[in-house]
Parts: sequence; structure tokens; C-alpha cells
Amino acid sequence: MTTGDNRTTAPTLAIVLAAGEGTRMRSTQPKVMHKVAGRTMVGHVLDAVAGAGVTDVVVVVGPGMEALAKAVAPHPIAIQQDRRGTAHAVLAARDAIAAGAGDVLVVFGDTPLVSSETIGRLLAERRQGAAVAVLGFRPADPSPYGRFVLDADGGLARIVEAKDATEDERRIGLCNAGLMAIDGARALDLLDRVGCDNAKGEFYLTDLVAVARAAGAACRFAEAPVEELMGVNTRADLAAAEAAMQDRLRRRAMAEGTTLVAPETVFLAADTRLGRDTVVHPHVVFGPGVTVGEGVEIRAFSHLEQATVGDGAIVGPYARLRPGAELGAGAHVGNFVEIKAATLGPGAKANHLAYIGDATVGAGANIGAGTITCNYDGFGKYRTEIGAGAFIGSNTALVAPVSVGAGAIVGAGSVITETVPDESLAIGRSRQATKPGVAPAYRALRRARREGKV
Amino acid sequence: MTTGDNRTTAPTLAIVLAAGEGTRMRSTQPKVMHKVAGRTMVGHVLDAVAGAGVTDVVVVVGPGMEALAKAVAPHPIAIQQDRRGTAHAVLAARDAIAAGAGDVLVVFGDTPLVSSETIGRLLAERRQGAAVAVLGFRPADPSPYGRFVLDADGGLARIVEAKDATEDERRIGLCNAGLMAIDGARALDLLDRVGCDNAKGEFYLTDLVAVARAAGAACRFAEAPVEELMGVNTRADLAAAEAAMQDRLRRRAMAEGTTLVAPETVFLAADTRLGRDTVVHPHVVFGPGVTVGEGVEIRAFSHLEQATVGDGAIVGPYARLRPGAELGAGAHVGNFVEIKAATLGPGAKANHLAYIGDATVGAGANIGAGTITCNYDGFGKYRTEIGAGAFIGSNTALVAPVSVGAGAIVGAGSVITETVPDESLAIGRSRQATKPGVAPAYRALRRARREGKV
Amino acid sequence: MTTGDNRTTAPTLAIVLAAGEGTRMRSTQPKVMHKVAGRTMVGHVLDAVAGAGVTDVVVVVGPGMEALAKAVAPHPIAIQQDRRGTAHAVLAARDAIAAGAGDVLVVFGDTPLVSSETIGRLLAERRQGAAVAVLGFRPADPSPYGRFVLDADGGLARIVEAKDATEDERRIGLCNAGLMAIDGARALDLLDRVGCDNAKGEFYLTDLVAVARAAGAACRFAEAPVEELMGVNTRADLAAAEAAMQDRLRRRAMAEGTTLVAPETVFLAADTRLGRDTVVHPHVVFGPGVTVGEGVEIRAFSHLEQATVGDGAIVGPYARLRPGAELGAGAHVGNFVEIKAATLGPGAKANHLAYIGDATVGAGANIGAGTITCNYDGFGKYRTEIGAGAFIGSNTALVAPVSVGAGAIVGAGSVITETVPDESLAIGRSRQATKPGVAPAYRALRRARREGKV
Repeated sequence: MTTGDNRTTAPTLAIVLAAGEGTRMRSTQPKVMHKVAGRTMVGHVLDAVAGAGVTDVVVVVGPGMEALAKAVAPHPIAIQQDRRGTAHAVLAARDAIAAGAGDVLVVFGDTPLVSSETIGRLLAERRQGAAVAVLGFRPADPSPYGRFVLDADGGLARIVEAKDATEDERRIGLCNAGLMAIDGARALDLLDRVGCDNAKGEFYLTDLVAVARAAGAACRFAEAPVEELMGVNTRADLAAAEAAMQDRLRRRAMAEGTTLVAPETVFLAADTRLGRDTVVHPHVVFGPGVTVGEGVEIRAFSHLEQATVGDGAIVGPYARLRPGAELGAGAHVGNFVEIKAATLGPGAKANHLAYIGDATVGAGANIGAGTITCNYDGFGKYRTEIGAGAFIGSNTALVAPVSVGAGAIVGAGSVITETVPDESLAIGRSRQATKPGVAPAYRALRRARREGKV
Repeated sequence: MTTGDNRTTAPTLAIVLAAGEGTRMRSTQPKVMHKVAGRTMVGHVLDAVAGAGVTDVVVVVGPGMEALAKAVAPHPIAIQQDRRGTAHAVLAARDAIAAGAGDVLVVFGDTPLVSSETIGRLLAERRQGAAVAVLGFRPADPSPYGRFVLDADGGLARIVEAKDATEDERRIGLCNAGLMAIDGARALDLLDRVGCDNAKGEFYLTDLVAVARAAGAACRFAEAPVEELMGVNTRADLAAAEAAMQDRLRRRAMAEGTTLVAPETVFLAADTRLGRDTVVHPHVVFGPGVTVGEGVEIRAFSHLEQATVGDGAIVGPYARLRPGAELGAGAHVGNFVEIKAATLGPGAKANHLAYIGDATVGAGANIGAGTITCNYDGFGKYRTEIGAGAFIGSNTALVAPVSVGAGAIVGAGSVITETVPDESLAIGRSRQATKPGVAPAYRALRRARREGKV
Repeated sequence: MTTGDNRTTAPTLAIVLAAGEGTRMRSTQPKVMHKVAGRTMVGHVLDAVAGAGVTDVVVVVGPGMEALAKAVAPHPIAIQQDRRGTAHAVLAARDAIAAGAGDVLVVFGDTPLVSSETIGRLLAERRQGAAVAVLGFRPADPSPYGRFVLDADGGLARIVEAKDATEDERRIGLCNAGLMAIDGARALDLLDRVGCDNAKGEFYLTDLVAVARAAGAACRFAEAPVEELMGVNTRADLAAAEAAMQDRLRRRAMAEGTTLVAPETVFLAADTRLGRDTVVHPHVVFGPGVTVGEGVEIRAFSHLEQATVGDGAIVGPYARLRPGAELGAGAHVGNFVEIKAATLGPGAKANHLAYIGDATVGAGANIGAGTITCNYDGFGKYRTEIGAGAFIGSNTALVAPVSVGAGAIVGAGSVITETVPDESLAIGRSRQATKPGVAPAYRALRRARREGKV
């Protein structure tokens, strides 16, 4: 996606307003650090800005928000020292604006659903000869919002606040969403003319339209789907934004040819990629960084993050694929199995109650139920290598670093600490001792001990 | 359920139209092969047809749909070689129609929610002396649909397409759902009179009403609940059909005396049977073939398919019952336990982290945490037999084929490879070796190794 | 919360009507024994009554409802021998009323959502000089309900039944919810005047308003939010009440500063306490008795009941905390891990496939994957003690009673049956035997055996 207008030579500067503390969140974190679909809200906004082709970004933060500054790096920050309104917040980035930009784009860090397309359209409107272009939307209930009053040419004449609106103006459905694109050449001049002659004594960005019109400049607007402007002020709002984002992601996945049996129970990340004819059963969670091939079955109660799943694989139910899990085509990972930093070759199987971490499992190998790669010794992680076609008996502990060769067989219940060469048989378990008929005496002893008699 | 009219001697022939490729599904499979509640859409339609007492069925498929033909077997198929409309599709089954039928019933493979009752009522209407009976419904927004124009006697005078409707006709809420019952004696004659003088040059089944009326024959209609006519053209439609089907199944289960604590999170199959006073907690998935007794508790995150659960049993949370799991009355299967092709006797317990496959567990036996039946050796599956009242210590591997007798006790951490007779004690583990005070030295060694110093 | 009027010296008597069998539930249990948010419906009502400061309670039950009597203990019961209407049910508690009470409060055992605040307001209205105060509500569809007809002073003139209402009265939105507060001094006198001259020959509590007005006494009303009056007659109603209760609990948790990523998939108990900046991911179930600290992450598919989680801990995905699980600050409990009656010290970790029951785990200890505490011998439960900083290798069985000292190390795959002193190394596993090159012969043998050749 691009801004649709490559004639502009000076680049666009995006100013992301993120200084709000969000006290209604009742959080120790800045508001925009809260996550939607596994990504911070400001991260979504930065993605949307980048998707619109804007690469120069300044994030305006409040004092003491070091964690936020780190989260948005390498983008520079500007600090708004005290709260004197949105125009004042924009001017915290005065130096960046003064450095010259084709457009100055102002967006909000707490509207994670705004899209690149919308930002692109807003910039395109500005470039139709306007000093300022403002984003509008049509909320179900417009009553609390400022309304867009248009001029005869369809330009934006002014924004009238809800409390100041006449009866006719109150019937206007198109409301002010606040996002703006400003002509970079005039941005500082206009911003400096915004006053604070209002009840709170703050500098409102909204007043830029009146300022620009008073200076004889044209203003325009673009319109966005209402759900993109969903702002977040409370945890309930955050949940609503998550639901809207999930709805968007689920619809996209289905449109691309993936079956979500019960989409309302499947949670996706913004970057989840699911192949055609893949079926996702109910109650599945995708964290970031998951790519799934075609014709895969993701069964119920599975949880995947930073994992790759090859075509025709079967995952779950109750499979957990952690970062670095890579499943080859037709591999099977079954119930209560955790895979981490491990590659399973094509057709390899780990179907029951296993932990496969820091491992390479060859094509067609079979990992028995209850198998554990003992990859950690309290200091470091070590790797387990399992060759193609190997058969690991159930309830086996593989003490890494260790390797089991291709075609090798490991007996059930073994503890494997040494290399098992290709085509070898290894076993590491005790012989069974059976004492016929002694169970009643044993039970009597245990019962007596339980009752404190012995 | 029957058609309600047993006077008809010639049987009814159902023609199921299933030739659509469903390109909007973006799938390599024919549309009707996609599943709702664990069953293909065409499977649901075939069930509804069978439930209405109709046993003669022809499924009209497109060229190259061998998998579909196999899926609907033993019903015969007819191939519609090219796409020339719904009447043309029906005539792909010309031979079957010509063989003689009391009624020719035309249904669609992509409306999985249509019920036997509705089909029965449609056939009953046809048998009230009509040449053709058409199914109608009342969608929330009738604007895109053909409307039923009735005659003075309440018969169906004609179907007017949306684009041809007068203002008065556009106010009609009763719309054409497309399903039809046709007098078998006149079906071929009428179908052959349907023309293709329209924009697309196709033969539309809807025109049969006009053809019949022109021939002086009466037409009638039956009305179906709107949700039964939900058609599926996209994966989003498929999800909507799944939701509607689940809603139906959940309501039925609750009406029969089962508590679904959070029905919106419980997924049922069409054949799930749940007993009275059974409680299903949130987040439970039932695949096909599950029968659960009375007073059972199915806890959260459980997954059952082709399994039987006796009265008063406790299942889950996180229990997976796979095909062939049979739990006796009062049995307990707990968290992270998988049961497959195994019978648990009354009161038997496997409460933690276990895999019980290809096994028989006697009444009252206790399977310790982490127990694994090692039932597979890479070639075949072998059985484990555990007697009544046996006690299997935790983290035991039972290497099948193997049996543990009634009342026998197996020590924790054992690998059992040989028969344990009744009332015997068996153990198969190593003695512990303890090296006092050497942990610091061991840690120093591991740390050094980790740091590459040794 | 109190009733808001402490001038009343005689205590309030609450009569909870719970004699209904609830035949539409199709249950062997009395209706009010069915649960919402993990607590019986009557339990919720008793809590609401207690929350309004009312401590004298009589529960009116039907004959043979011993289990219900036990469930509401220590509150006394009164038995309504036969079903002759709500006023008759109240009079089953005649002795308690005759013993003297400031107010007689009548509530229903099958409206689990009624709040203490509502009860308090109803009592406060009664104390404004009224003989009777009745609770009203405004349902979306008032048509089936009795309407409140007010007098000129805003008092309650009468209740007109739906079938007797005039056209004007049918337009009244304020309907009779049935709950009442009655002047204790006059309660028996008024109740005894209620007649049964109606179609069913029953004694209706609603008639108390007419009786009181006929006696020249004033009646008043309080109004409750409609969702509080949701009654339960079927399992579908029960699910609806659960949904409403969950909605209430989820909103409260979010308002207090907890993130519920997908609130619709999280199930809370009435007493769940979640700290600020704790994040609960999708698909989590809280049973009763859970307290979670601040900054905790509860990952997907976790299940907690009667457990305590310290600040900054990480739980799940797929963690099951059972009664008596206590996690210290910063502890980690990961996938497919069950904790029961066990304390994990600060920073202790049990991240994979483990069962920790009846145990104490010291600060910073690391429990390897697949570790099982073998706490049960068929007769009693025994404890496992693990010291601070201990390292338990993967797939270890700890046979209780047993202790592993601080800083001790246990080798992977061990069975530990004896004390491991502090800073010691313990191991209990067999040596590995490896037979190079014999896998092909082994496979040939297994295959032959499978094929019945040997």
C-alpha cells in the first residue's frame, strides 16, 4: 500500500499521539502499551502508518514513559511535558515538523483499528490542494461528537462542537474523528495560531480547521468506517477493540479459503497466515508469527505461536507449538504435546503427552507417548537429534545433548544419555521384579502405616 | 418421521443437487463436502431426506467429483456435464425419473439445515392434488428473492422474480426457497417444457410453476422456518450454518435435561446423546458418536469422539476420549488423559497425565499419574489388560501385550513387560544412588561446560 | 451493605421460597439446586440477602428435599406440604413470622441475579410507612406480567393482572417482580386474609397489596434492573442466567483493572479476585475460591479453583490449579501441569507435563518436564518436600513421603524414594544398553510377529 500520490517529493511525517496515561485503564502501563491481537495498540497504529507508506515517525509520549519509548524504537519520541491539549501534544514534535515534511499526519496511539487505506485516503485528500484534511466517521450515536459542516464545494467549512451545534447541525451524521493530514509547508504556522481560549484552557487540534479557513486555506475530509475509529479508554473498550480486530482477522482468513468452524472461538494474530483448505476447529489460539500451510487440520484447544506448519499436517487437539516449532508436511502433533525450537520432518509423529524442545526429528520418526527431551540442566539448553524413521518407545527420557540415529529403536521407558547409532537398538530400563501373591500383605502394611499402627 | 401420506404406492425419488463447485469457498473440494457439526453438508441433506422416509436418492454431481460420489455412496450419482441451470441439473437424473416415482423431490446439497419435517410437509402439500409444490420461507430481507403470488384458493399462482416484481408484489414476504416436490407421473413432461429464454440462457427449475400452471395443473407451497434455508456459498456462510446448527443442537440438549453451563462454548455433533442431569462445563467439544449417561460431569476443555460414558462418571477437565473409549459408571478420567479403544470398568480412575490405549481396565482400578500403555511397536497395536482393583503406580510404562492381574500392585516408575498375576506386586525400576554434597561441584562443572571452559 | 435503616430494632426475617420442583428442568434435583457461576441459585439468593444485612432466614422447601435442606444449612427450613400458591408457601414459615420481625422479606430461590442493593432498596421503601413494598421491573415485553398501578402520591395502588388489564393499564411498563417486604407487625394478619377465590384455587402473594389497601394501609414499590429478575424455569433459562451473571462478573473484573482479552470466553466465579494489570487470555475457567495477584499472566486454556497466585506469576497455557495450589510471586506453571495442595515458592517453575500434588516446592526450584509426585499409595496421600533452588530432572518420579533438599540435583528419569540431602546429587535410573545395527533384525521380528509368522 502506498499513499497514492508519489508526486510529493518531501516525505510525510507521522506524529503519533501517545502521551495519555489512560487512568481509566487502572494500569501502571501507558494506555497505548496495552495489547490487541497480541500487539500493542501503538504498534498497530505504527503498522498502519507504515502500510500507508509513511516512514518518518515521531511518537509523542508523556514524561517517564521509558518503556513506551523503548517499545516504539527505532522511531524517535518527543516528550509532552504537560497536558495542554492535542495541538500542544503535536507541537512537542516541533523540531521534526520544522525539519520539513510534505505532509504532517497526526494519528492517535489508542485507535488500533485504523487502517492503512484510511490513512492513505486522508493524505490523498490533503494533497487535493487543502491545507488540512480531517478524518470523519459516522457513529451510530453522533450526539457527543463534533460535526463536519461542509461548504458548497464539498470541502470542510468547519467543525462544530456538539454543545455548540444548532438543531440543523445536530442532524449531521458525519463526525470528527480527529486524525489529520496537514500541509507540511504551513503546519507550524497554522499550529502556532491555535489558541487556548476555552473552558479548559487547552490547545485543541480541532481548531486547526478554523485557523486554516481564517487564513483563507481550503480544508477537506476523508471518511472512515466507524469501527476503525474505536478508541480505547477502559479495559472494556480494550476488549471491544480486540473483538473488532478478531472479527476483521477471522473474516480475512475465511475469505482466503480457510475454514474456521467456530470463528468466535478462534483467536488470531495480525500476522497469522493460514493456507487454503486448512480447517481450524473450535477453541484455537494463534499467537504472533504463525504460518500454516494448505490442507492442515488444527484441532480444538491448540495453541500456536512463532511456529510453522507444513501442508497436510495434523495439529492437536491440545497441541502447543511454541517459538521455533517447525512441522514438516504431513507431520502429526497430538494431544498434550509441546514443541519448542524443534523441527519435525515430513510425516514425523509425536501424538501423545510429550515435550520436544531444542530438537531435530527426522522424517517419519515416531515419538512415543510420554517422551521428554531433557534439554535443560539448570544452566543451558542442549539439543536432541533424532534421525529419520527412528522409533522412540513411550515414556523415554532423552538426556541432551544426545542423538538417536536414523532407523534406530529405543525401548519404552528408557533413559537415553549416550549416542544411539543408526539402525541400532537402545534400551535403558530396569528388569521387572514380580512377587506373586504379596499384594494383600503390602496393602495391609500400607493401611496400617496410614492408620498409624506401624 | 414419515412423509405422512402412505397412500402413495410408488416411492418418492429425491434428487439432491450437488454439482456446484462453490468457487467462492476457495477450496479444492466440492462445496457440499464441507462440514457442519462434523458431517458433510450433503450428508445432512441426505439425513433429512431419509428422515422424511425417502429412500430412493440420486445425487447430481459435477464432472470429476469422484470424492463426492464416494462420500454419498451407496446412493447413485448422476453427472451434470455442463452448467445450464437447476432444471438442467435435475434432468441429469432423467433415467431415475423415467423409472417412475410417486413424487420427485428436489433438494439442494448446500442447505444443511433443512429438516425432515419440512421435507415431509412439502411432500404432503404436493399430494393435495398439485403437480408441483414449492418450498417458501420468509427472510428478514426479501428483496433479492422471488416472491410467491398466491391464487384465490391459497394455491401458488406464480413466482415473480425480484427484478420483475411490481410495487405490490415487492411487499410479499413469502419467498421462493427453491426446493420442490413434483408429481412423478408428470415430472419429465413438465421438466422438458422448461425453456432457457432468459439472460443467461439457462433452464431454471423455478419456471416449473409457470409451466405447470400453463398446463392447467395446480401448484401449492409449504413454508419453512427461515433458518432452515440458510445456503452456503462462502466460508463465512459455512461458519454461520455451523452456528445455526449448533444452536439447534444445544437447545435440544438443554430441552432434554442436560445442563450446558455456557452453551455458546460447547460444540455438539448431530448424533451426540447426553443424559439427564449431566452437566457440560464451558469449552467442551463433542465429535461424532458420543453417548453420555445420566448425572455425568463433563468438565471444561474436554474433547470426546466415538466414546461412551456411563452414569455418574466424571470426565475432565482436559480429558480426551477417542474412538472406542468406554467409561463405566462412576469412572473418572482427569486432566491431560487420553483414552483410546479402551474400556474403564465402573469406578476405575485415570486422573492425571496418562495415555490408555488398546486396554481393558477393571472395575475400581487406579491408574497413576503419568502412566502410559506402550501399545505400538511401529508395526501393530497390542493390548494391555488391567484387572479389577489393580493399582498402577505413577509414571509406569506398560509395554503391551501385557496384563496386570486383579488386585495387583505396580510400583511407581516401573516398566512392566511381563505378566503380573492377580494379587501380586511388581516393580521395575532402578535403585536410587545419592551422592551427598556433590551438587555444587556438579553445578560448577555444568556451568563451566556451558561457558565452554571444559 | 446494610438495609439503610438502622432505626428498626426488630431484625428482618427473610423467607426464601424454594419449594418448586422445576419440572421443566427435567431434573432429579430441586430447581434451586442448579448452579450459576459455580454456586447454587439459592446460594446466590442467600448471599444477596446476607449482603443486605439480613441474617434471619427461613428457606421454604418442598417435601422430600433433604439435599436442599442440607445445602442451605445452617439456615432453618420450613416445608410446604402441598402446592397452594405463593402466599401459602410464605405461611409455611408461620412460626418464624409469629416469632416477631421488623420486616418480613419474601424472595425467590430461582432468581439468582437479584442484588443486595435491590433488596436493601425494597426494605427501605417498606420502612417509609408502608405495610407492603413490592419489587417492580420493566421487562422488554411487559405483556405477560401484572402491572403496577400507582396512586396520586406515587404509592402502589394495586397490581392488575395482565388478563384483567384495561387498554390503558396494558401500556404500563412497570411490572410486578413478586419480591416483597412486609411490615413484620402486620404480616401474619395480612397473609391470613389472602383468599383463594381464583381459577386455580391458590393463595397468591400478589393479593397482599389489595388486602393491605383494603385494610387502609399504604403500599410502596422499589424498582430493580430488569436483568436482576431473570427467573429460571428451564435449562435454557439457566444458561441465560449464567450468561448474565458472567457478564456482570466480567465487567467488574475489567473495571477493577484486569485485562480480559476475550471476556466472552472467560468464566469467573462470584468470588474470583484478580489483581490490577493481570492479563487473562482467551478460554480460561475460574472455579470458586481463586485469588490472583497483580501483573499475573493467565494464559489460554487454564483452569483454576481454590488457588492463590502471587504477583507476577505466569500460569498456563493449559495449567490446572486445583484446591490448595499456592503460587509464590513470579512462579511459573506451564502447559499440561496440574498443581494440587501444593505450594510453589517465589520464582519456582514447573513448566511442562507435571503433576505436583501434596507438595512444597522451595523458591527458585525447577521441576523438570514429566515430573510426577507419587502422592497416593491406594490408602493415603503423602507429601513431597522440595527445597529452595533444587533441580528435579525431567521424567522423575518422586515417591512420597520423600524430601529433596535445598540446592539438590536429581538426574532425569529417576525414581526417588529416599531423602536427598541439601546440595546432594541423586539419580535412580538404569544404564543404557546399546546394540549397534540390530534394529533391522528387531523390526523384522516385530513385523513377523505382527503378521502371525512367529
